[in-house]
Amino acid sequence: MSFAPLHNDTFLRACLGQATDYTPVWLMRQAGRYLPEYCATRARAGSFMGLATNVDFATEVTLQPLERYPLDAAILFSDILTVPDAMGLGLSFQQGEGPKFEQVVRDEAAVAGLAVPDMAKLRYVFDAVTSIRRALGGRVPLIGFSGSPWTLACYMVEGGSSSDYRHVKTLLYARPDLMHRVLAVNADAVAAYLNAQIDAGAQAVMVFDSWGGVLADGAFQDFSLAYTARVLAQLKRTGTDGQVVPRIVFTKGGGLWLGEMTGLACDVLGLDWTMSLGRARAIVSEAACARHARADGSKHAENPVTPVHPVALQGNLDPNVLFAPPEAVRAQARAVLDSFGAPDPAGQTGVGHVFNLGHGISQFTPPEHVAHLVDEVHSYSARQRR
Amino acid sequence: MSFAPLHNDTFLRACLGQATDYTPVWLMRQAGRYLPEYCATRARAGSFMGLATNVDFATEVTLQPLERYPLDAAILFSDILTVPDAMGLGLSFQQGEGPKFEQVVRDEAAVAGLAVPDMAKLRYVFDAVTSIRRALGGRVPLIGFSGSPWTLACYMVEGGSSSDYRHVKTLLYARPDLMHRVLAVNADAVAAYLNAQIDAGAQAVMVFDSWGGVLADGAFQDFSLAYTARVLAQLKRTGTDGQVVPRIVFTKGGGLWLGEMTGLACDVLGLDWTMSLGRARAIVSEAACARHARADGSKHAENPVTPVHPVALQGNLDPNVLFAPPEAVRAQARAVLDSFGAPDPAGQTGVGHVFNLGHGISQFTPPEHVAHLVDEVHSYSARQRR
Repeated sequence: MSFAPLHNDTFLRACLGQATDYTPVWLMRQAGRYLPEYCATRARAGSFMGLATNVDFATEVTLQPLERYPLDAAILFSDILTVPDAMGLGLSFQQGEGPKFEQVVRDEAAVAGLAVPDMAKLRYVFDAVTSIRRALGGRVPLIGFSGSPWTLACYMVEGGSSSDYRHVKTLLYARPDLMHRVLAVNADAVAAYLNAQIDAGAQAVMVFDSWGGVLADGAFQDFSLAYTARVLAQLKRTGTDGQVVPRIVFTKGGGLWLGEMTGLACDVLGLDWTMSLGRARAIVSEAACARHARADGSKHAENPVTPVHPVALQGNLDPNVLFAPPEAVRAQARAVLDSFGAPDPAGQTGVGHVFNLGHGISQFTPPEHVAHLVDEVHSYSARQRR
Repeated sequence: MSFAPLHNDTFLRACLGQATDYTPVWLMRQAGRYLPEYCATRARAGSFMGLATNVDFATEVTLQPLERYPLDAAILFSDILTVPDAMGLGLSFQQGEGPKFEQVVRDEAAVAGLAVPDMAKLRYVFDAVTSIRRALGGRVPLIGFSGSPWTLACYMVEGGSSSDYRHVKTLLYARPDLMHRVLAVNADAVAAYLNAQIDAGAQAVMVFDSWGGVLADGAFQDFSLAYTARVLAQLKRTGTDGQVVPRIVFTKGGGLWLGEMTGLACDVLGLDWTMSLGRARAIVSEAACARHARADGSKHAENPVTPVHPVALQGNLDPNVLFAPPEAVRAQARAVLDSFGAPDPAGQTGVGHVFNLGHGISQFTPPEHVAHLVDEVHSYSARQRR
C-alpha cells in the first residue's frame, strides 16, 4: 500500500522528542457533536454505529475538523468498544444513554468464552483507516487508536458506562484470576487491532486508558499498566511506509503513576489537567537521563531516532476552558505552554510536547473558540522558540 | 455544656500523631443505606431531609453503625448541602436523582445576593451534634463536618450533581472574580458552621473537598486549596471540654497535590485509594521534618501536643473491596496497613494513621463484610505494634 508523502510531520516529530518549529495540536474527539457538520452527517447515517461502521461517513467526519482548523493530526473516527463488540458481546447505543452490551462478562463461563476476535470482523475499521489516509493526501498524519485492556474490561463487565465500577472491581477483588484472564485476552486483541490499523495506514497509535485512574494504587499497576505493557510489547514499530509509528498512552487520572509509566515501551504519555506539565516533564526527563546513563555504562546506547521509552508528553488543557471567552481560552492555552516550558534546543535530548485537551472536547463547545485555541497554541509556541 | 468523659480516645490520638495501641477506624457514610436499620429509620422519617433535619432521627442513625461494629469514631449524620440551603438556594432531593437547588448561582446578580447565612437557620444541625454527643456517652469521639467552599460552589453553580462541572468551570474561567466571591462567602460560612458544631460538642471536624480533584493544576490551588485554608484559619482550636479539636481535610483525587496540602493548618489529610499511603507518609513526614528544622533554627519550636500542620493520614481502602469475600476484604485491609507501614515508636515525632475508606461506603455493601474489615484493622494493626 502506498500513500501520498506527508507534508506536515510536526506531530510525529514532537512525539519522538525531535525539535519542531511550533507545538503541534490536535484535540481528543475533534470530530464530534460540537460541529454542526458532524451532526448533519450523523443524521444522514441514522445512528452512531451507522456512522462508525460506514467507511465513507467515517472518512467524512474525520476530515471535518481539519477543514475548519489547522490541526496537526487527524484521528480515526471510531468507537472505543469495537473490539468487545467483535468478541460477540453485542454493542448498541440507546438514545442519550451511552453504550450497552447485550452480554456482560461477570462469571467463570462468560470469561471462559472470551477470545481474541477474528480481525476480519473489524475490517470496517481498517478500511476506514485506509480511506481516511488516502483522503488526507499527506496533509497531516493519521492516528489510530484503541481502548486499553482495562478500560475495555470495565465496559465488558459493567455492561456499559458506570459511576462506581462496582461490578468490575468486585470481579477484580473477588476473582483476580478471572480478571487477569479477561485482561490477557483484551491485551492480545488490542495489539492485533492496532497492528492491523498500522498495516492499513495509521501513522501513530494511541491507547486510551480512560478508566485506569479509578483503580487503587497497586491494582492500577497489576490490572491496567501491566496489560498496556503487554499491548505495547506486541506492536509493530514501523508503518506501511517504513516510518516509525509513535505510540501514545493516555491514562486519565494517572498523574500519580507517571514515574512508573516512564517504564512503558511507548513514545508519548498523555496527561489530564490535574498534573502539572512542568513537573511531568521533569519526571520524564529524569527517567530518560537515568536510562541514558545506564545505556552508556553498558555500551548499548539507544538509537535516538526510535525511542523505546517515553520522550514526549501530550495534553493537558481542561476542555471546560473552551466555554470561556476567546481571550480567556488564549490565556489558558499560554498557561499550558508555559507550564511545559521552553522547548529544548534542537539537537539535544529533550522532551517533546503535543498540545491536546486532557479529555474529549464537550459537545457544547462553541466551535469558534476552538479556532482561537489552535491559533494561540501555534503562534505562542512559535514565539517561545525565538 | 459538659459531657461524659471519653473512654476511647484512639482516634483523637492518631489524628494528632500520637502513639496508639492499634489503628483506629471509622468509615465515610458509615450511617447509611447499606444498613437495614438505617433504611427503616429513613422510612419512618419519610425523606432524606426529614431524617437529616430531625434531631432524634439523626441521633438514632448516627449511633446505628456503632451498635454493629467497634468503630473508633462517630460522624454527625447530616447532608453536605445544609449551608447553601441556609443561604436560601432551596435544597430538595428528588427520588433517585440526588440533590437539586431551586436557584442556581451563575451570574453577577445571583453572586451578589450570596451572604454568610444566619447560623440560627442551621440550629437543627447543632442540636443534633449535642444530642449525638450526649447519646454517645463518651464511647467514641464525635466528628462534625462540612463540604469545602469549592465543593459547595460546585453544587450551587451546577444546581445539583454534575458529570462534567461545565457550569462551575465556565464561571471559574470566564468570571474568576465572581468565582472568588462565591468561594469567599462559602469559606466564611463553612468556618462559622464548623465552629458552631465545635461549640455544640463536636470533638473533631472534617472538611470534605469531594470535588477538588476535578480542577486543573493551578486552578485547584487558587480555587479550592486557598479557600480550605481560609476556613482553617478561622477555626477554633479547642472544644467545649478544652480539648484540642483535630481538623481533617479530604480532597478526593488530590494525591498529586499532597505536597502543597502539607502546608495547610490541619492535623489530618485524607486520601483516596489512588495514592500510595507509604508515599504519602513519606511526603508528610518530610514536610514535618523541614518545619521542625526551621522551627529549631528560629527558636520557635512548635508545641507537639497541638500540631498546626498535618501529622496524620486518613484512608484509603477502595470501598469496592467490600464486595469481595471476607478473606479478600481482610487481605486488602492488611495491604493498606502494610502500605502505611509500621507505626513510629512511641515518643518519636511520627505520622499517625486513621483507617478509613477512600470514599463513602456503597449502599450495596454486605454489612457482615464491614465487621470483617473493622476486626482485621484492629487485630492486624495491634500485631504490627508488637
